[in-house]
Amino acid sequence: MENSIKDIGEQGLLKILQQFCPPEIIGDDAAILEVKNGHSLVVTTDVLVDGVHFSDLTTSPEDVGWRCVAANLSDIAAMGAKPLGITVGLGLPPDTSLDWVIQLYEGMTYCLKQYDTVIVGGDICRSSVISVSITALGSVLPNRIISRFLAKPGDAIVITGCHGLSRAGLELLLHPAKGKNLEPNSRNILIQAHQRPKPRLDILDSLWNLTDYSIAGMDSSDGLADAVLQICRCSQVGAKINQNAIPLPYALRNFVSDEQALDYALYGGEDFELVLCLPLEIAEAFVETIGQNAAIIGHITAEKEVRINDRLLYLTEGYQHFSH
Amino acid sequence: MENSIKDIGEQGLLKILQQFCPPEIIGDDAAILEVKNGHSLVVTTDVLVDGVHFSDLTTSPEDVGWRCVAANLSDIAAMGAKPLGITVGLGLPPDTSLDWVIQLYEGMTYCLKQYDTVIVGGDICRSSVISVSITALGSVLPNRIISRFLAKPGDAIVITGCHGLSRAGLELLLHPAKGKNLEPNSRNILIQAHQRPKPRLDILDSLWNLTDYSIAGMDSSDGLADAVLQICRCSQVGAKINQNAIPLPYALRNFVSDEQALDYALYGGEDFELVLCLPLEIAEAFVETIGQNAAIIGHITAEKEVRINDRLLYLTEGYQHFSH
Repeated sequence: MENSIKDIGEQGLLKILQQFCPPEIIGDDAAILEVKNGHSLVVTTDVLVDGVHFSDLTTSPEDVGWRCVAANLSDIAAMGAKPLGITVGLGLPPDTSLDWVIQLYEGMTYCLKQYDTVIVGGDICRSSVISVSITALGSVLPNRIISRFLAKPGDAIVITGCHGLSRAGLELLLHPAKGKNLEPNSRNILIQAHQRPKPRLDILDSLWNLTDYSIAGMDSSDGLADAVLQICRCSQVGAKINQNAIPLPYALRNFVSDEQALDYALYGGEDFELVLCLPLEIAEAFVETIGQNAAIIGHITAEKEVRINDRLLYLTEGYQHFSH
Repeated sequence: MENSIKDIGEQGLLKILQQFCPPEIIGDDAAILEVKNGHSLVVTTDVLVDGVHFSDLTTSPEDVGWRCVAANLSDIAAMGAKPLGITVGLGLPPDTSLDWVIQLYEGMTYCLKQYDTVIVGGDICRSSVISVSITALGSVLPNRIISRFLAKPGDAIVITGCHGLSRAGLELLLHPAKGKNLEPNSRNILIQAHQRPKPRLDILDSLWNLTDYSIAGMDSSDGLADAVLQICRCSQVGAKINQNAIPLPYALRNFVSDEQALDYALYGGEDFELVLCLPLEIAEAFVETIGQNAAIIGHITAEKEVRINDRLLYLTEGYQHFSH
């Protein structure tokens, strides 16, 4: 019979989970980390709950682990920072299978490893629902902080990659029949985008090779439309988006209509790309450096409205917790 | 009718809760903090769940907030560090009353204020049970880190205050009839100890006035016996505890037998005092400085067994999540 965590108890589970942490960090009241002199500390927290953010229907425990970590590392990337480590707070029903928890940690540490970082602490606790609270820590030189508050009229708006794929992947997982005519390669791309999104920590060095200028931006975790609107609201500016400049890759158009593809790109969320506002010349060099999926999709304006072609860009109700 | 959080939605709730954070810290993907040059960063996480760690029976929402913060700040104190801030991840059922959440935050910020620190970030999420995940951040000079691994034979074992009061307060709240003969002042002391425990950040300056020596210790959040046993296990030493040196204050003896009082002191937990191992002269000066409730209760030995008077000190099953 499969072990559940109540069979091994809290201490037994802790011992197993500590194997996923660097040994030198374990065992005291708190973890000790070094922040390089002159660097600022960056901190972000996410709570993910079974049935709200993930489900056995669409995501294996490894995928849940990967996604929880990726979402937090994306917030670290969105500040221009490099990760120092994460803490993991788990709420677990006593009948949770031990395998599920171990696979969750395997997914988390696999994602962390890609970005050269680790679990530095945590806590586990009995609960009636599985919840995963992650706090990610990072460090950044103060002049390299990426901020939502710094967009200026004339800045080009850059996205580091495609949008809408994760939302399409979710749709495909929830309603497999919808994908019956989909090419296998398109299917893989969409499902990977949903299950294994990649925080864009990889593009920061390219950015800093081009500029030490203060940069405006954020990640597109709640969708591309949300990111542009939030940057404009925080910076008290507006934007003009060129609809045709938003890349809608073949995998997406192979699955849904162009209209639906655009809707997914604008409002789907969880693509974890960065949306950056840069002087045009730097934007062009940056897009060329990081490759074909990056694009300039418009520019910042002094008028405080956000337009896509001739329409006002609005935020759909989107995902509001508690209200449904 | 009282508002529940589903009436105001996630954005509405976030706006209300942001009033409890310093305004300069809000609104970006992550918070930025400064760690002073030469200081190490200290990080600790706790998850607390309704019905497991707190209950409306024994703790008001303000008390829950205070206790969650106090437990985390105690871990910061146990590392010898000063707090930089906390992040708060909340899981909330949609029918949670708005007042409950606001009072939780009032309790948290009230406790934080006593220790000159703040909420620097957080997340809220729909869940089927109330959970509070707190990550506390602190900073410490590397030579002032208090560690479980540094106890040496000959060190005096110091406690910074009384033990057992919080456990007695909980008993009184769960079974009010047991306190029918208790003096009002004793009742207040016990209930305050449970509902408003004080992390001992206040004693660190006194400690450092006496020594820059590396210090062994931890907090007594899981009970005094657990703290002594853990320090001894981590440092590969033993200890001799003098039972009569453990202070059992009048409020405790007014409520239960001396035998029960000692049991609460050793195993009750959640008193959030510090247990420190110091050279005898420094220990004596330290106890004199911080006052009457502090005491030297024994000393560290080379033999790897922990004795209280002539008995071996053992750990009761204590509080094991998942196993009941």
